[in-house]
Amino acid sequence: MKEIQGGVTAAKGYKATGGAIGIKEGIKDMAILVSEVSATAVGAFTTNVVKATSVLRNMELMEQKQQIKGIVINSGNANACTGIEGEKANQEMAETLADCLKVGQEQILTASTGVIGATFPIEKVKNGIHLLFPKLGKTLEDGHLAAEGIMTTDTYSKEVAVALEIGGKTVTIGGMAKGSGMIHPNMATMLAFITSDVCIKRELLDEILKESIQTSYNMVSVDGDTSTNDTVIVLANGMAGNAEITQKNADYEALKQALHFVNTKLAKDLVRDGEGATKFIEVHVSGAKTQQDAKTIAKSVVTSNLVKTAMYGEDANWGRVLCAMGYSSINFDTKKVDIIYHSAKGSIDLMIQGSPIVFDEQKALEILKEKEITVEIRIQEGIEKATAWGCDLSHEYVSINGDYRS
Amino acid sequence: MKEIQGGVTAAKGYKATGGAIGIKEGIKDMAILVSEVSATAVGAFTTNVVKATSVLRNMELMEQKQQIKGIVINSGNANACTGIEGEKANQEMAETLADCLKVGQEQILTASTGVIGATFPIEKVKNGIHLLFPKLGKTLEDGHLAAEGIMTTDTYSKEVAVALEIGGKTVTIGGMAKGSGMIHPNMATMLAFITSDVCIKRELLDEILKESIQTSYNMVSVDGDTSTNDTVIVLANGMAGNAEITQKNADYEALKQALHFVNTKLAKDLVRDGEGATKFIEVHVSGAKTQQDAKTIAKSVVTSNLVKTAMYGEDANWGRVLCAMGYSSINFDTKKVDIIYHSAKGSIDLMIQGSPIVFDEQKALEILKEKEITVEIRIQEGIEKATAWGCDLSHEYVSINGDYRS
Repeated sequence: MKEIQGGVTAAKGYKATGGAIGIKEGIKDMAILVSEVSATAVGAFTTNVVKATSVLRNMELMEQKQQIKGIVINSGNANACTGIEGEKANQEMAETLADCLKVGQEQILTASTGVIGATFPIEKVKNGIHLLFPKLGKTLEDGHLAAEGIMTTDTYSKEVAVALEIGGKTVTIGGMAKGSGMIHPNMATMLAFITSDVCIKRELLDEILKESIQTSYNMVSVDGDTSTNDTVIVLANGMAGNAEITQKNADYEALKQALHFVNTKLAKDLVRDGEGATKFIEVHVSGAKTQQDAKTIAKSVVTSNLVKTAMYGEDANWGRVLCAMGYSSINFDTKKVDIIYHSAKGSIDLMIQGSPIVFDEQKALEILKEKEITVEIRIQEGIEKATAWGCDLSHEYVSINGDYRS
Repeated sequence: MKEIQGGVTAAKGYKATGGAIGIKEGIKDMAILVSEVSATAVGAFTTNVVKATSVLRNMELMEQKQQIKGIVINSGNANACTGIEGEKANQEMAETLADCLKVGQEQILTASTGVIGATFPIEKVKNGIHLLFPKLGKTLEDGHLAAEGIMTTDTYSKEVAVALEIGGKTVTIGGMAKGSGMIHPNMATMLAFITSDVCIKRELLDEILKESIQTSYNMVSVDGDTSTNDTVIVLANGMAGNAEITQKNADYEALKQALHFVNTKLAKDLVRDGEGATKFIEVHVSGAKTQQDAKTIAKSVVTSNLVKTAMYGEDANWGRVLCAMGYSSINFDTKKVDIIYHSAKGSIDLMIQGSPIVFDEQKALEILKEKEITVEIRIQEGIEKATAWGCDLSHEYVSINGDYRS
C-alpha cells in the first residue's frame, strides 16, 4: 500500500464537485459525489438519540442494502430537529440529485452539517444541485472542491488517498472528511466519505468499517460533544476489476489495513484542525487489562478540559493527567503508573512507578512548545493498549463557539 | 429553619481561624477548625481512583468511627500522588494539631487542595499550625478567616449558617466550602466543612449526608473534571443540648432539610464562582421515567462545552442543548421535547413538542444577558425530575487553567 495524491476522485469511476450555493454567504457549502456504476455502500452513524433526518434515511437505505449512485452533502444547516418539514426537504434533496442522474431516489444518500433546528433552505439546495451537477468531474481538483464544499469551521480540507495491489489489480481508496467542533468518541459532527473501486462483498466491507471506526474516528475528541449528524460512508464500485473479495483472506487483510489507514489519517486530521486547536495531542495507554480499559483511560485524559488547557498553556501539569485517569472509572494501581511526555524535542519522565520525578522545567517547556505532543501512560496491569487523539482548549475555541450558532 | 449570619463558628462549641503560612506567597493558605468537645464526624469523599493521602486517612478514621476534635486544612498543595513521603507528611500534619490540642492524632482530620504531585511543604505546614493555633476564636470573623484559608482560585469565600428548633432547643448548622475548577458530579476539587451542635446518632447523620450530596454537590459541574481531594465533612458535637436523634422522626426530617439547604447553598456557590464563570446556569429536567434519567440528562447538558460557550456568547443555541440531551445515553422521544430558557427578564420557548419555535432574537438576547439562566427541559416520558447547576465556559477559564498549575 502506498499513499497517493488526491481524495474522493482518486479511485476509478468517481466524479465530484463542490461550490457555493448560498446557504452560507459566499462560502462553499455543497458537495456532490457520484459513481459511474452503482456502488456497494456501508456506513456508520451517530449514536446520539437525536439524529438528523439525513442520518435516519441513510440508515434505512443501508439496511435495505441499496446500491448507491450518488451522495449530496450540504454544510451550513444540519437539517436536524426540523420535524416533518425537514424530513420532506431531505427527501427532495435526494430526489433532485436522483433526477439529474436519472436513477431512483433510493440510490442517493444525503448528508448535512451545520446549525441544528434552523429551517432547511430546500429551494437553495435544489437550485444548488442543478447548478453544481454539470460541474462534476474526475480530476483531483474536482475531488478537492468537494472536500471544500463540506467544511464548516474547518480551516483546511481533509483528503487522503492510497493505492494497493489486490489480485494483480491496483485498487484505490480515497476519502474526504470535515470536523471540527463537537468531535468526540462515538462519531461527532464529523462527516467522512470514502470512495473505492474495490470489489468486495457488502458484509465484509461493513465488518471492516465497523472495526476500523473503533480505533480511528471513535478515538478522537475535540470537545466531548457528540453530534446529531455524524456519518461515515464507504462506497465500493468494483471498477478496479479485482476478483470479488468474499472471504477473510490476504486480500481482505490488505484492504482492511488500507481502509484503516485512510480512516485514521482523516480522524487525526479532524482533531489537528479542531476548533481553536493550537496543539495536536496523542495519548497512548499501555499495560491495561483490556483494550476497553486502555481506550477508556486514553479518552478520559484526551477529553479533560484541565489537561487540554494545561497543554494550551504549555505546562507539564501531569497531575491533571493522573487525575483524569483516576476518574475514568477504570481501576488501576497508582503505584505502578508511568507518565512520560514526548515531542520532536525529546522526552521527559514525569511520574515513574507512581513516584513524581523531579524534572527540568526548562526542558519540559521546550518539549511542550511543539505542535504535536504525545502523552505516554503505562499502567502495568496487563498487556492491552490504545491511542486517542485530541487537541488543546484555547481562547479561540471559546470565541468560535460563543459566536457561531452551530 | 432560618438562615442566619456566619459559617463554621455559628454553631455552639466551635473555634476556627485561617491565615497565610507561606505555601502560597502572601495569600491565606491554611484553616484550622476545632470543637470544644469531641464531635461525631461523617464524610463523603472523591470517587476518583487516585485519592489524596488526606482523603485515604480520613476515610479510615471514619470507618473506625473516631470522634473528632479538630480539622486542619491547607490550600496550595493537594498532597496527592506524593508517595510515602506525602503520607508521612499528612500524618505529621495531623499530629501537630493533635499535640496542640493534647489529643490523639486519630481525633484529627486533615484536608489539602492545590497542585497535585508537588512535594508537600510539611515544615511550613507544621510551623503554620503552631502560628495559627493561638488565634483560634469563636466569632463569625474567625469562621470567615477559616473560609478564606481554604480558597484556591475562588474569588470569594463561601459560608452559610442556619438555625432550627429541635426538641425545644436551638440547633445551629454552619458551613464553608471552596471550589472552583475541577468541579463535576461525584465530588470534585471541592472541600466543604459543616459544623453543627446537634446531637444525633452517627448512622443517621451519615445517611442524611449521603442522601443530600446526591442532589447538591453531585449535581454541580464546572468543567467535568473530578478531583483527587474532594471532601465533605460534617461534625456534630451535641452541644445544642437536644435529646439525641435516634430515629427517623420529625426532628430527623427537620435536620435533614436544614443540612440539605446548607449543602445546596454551598454547592450552588461553588459553580457561581466557577473558574472564569460569567453566568450561573440551572438546568431543570422534568418528565423523566426515573430520577436517574433526569439527573443524567441535566448533567449532560450542564457539562457540554458547546452549551457552556453558547451561554458565554449569549446565543440561544438550543440545538446544542438537545444534542447534549441526545448523547447523554438516556432514551427519549425527540417529538415530545420542550426546551424553554428563563431569566429575570422573562421566558422564551425554543422548542415545544419537538418542534422549533420561531423566536424573537432580541428578546432571547435580553434574557441571556442576565447572570442567572435557567434551562427548562420537559421530556414527557414520566414524572421524575432533577436539577443540575453549572456555569459558562469563558476565555477567562482558559487563561486560569493554562497558567495555573493545580
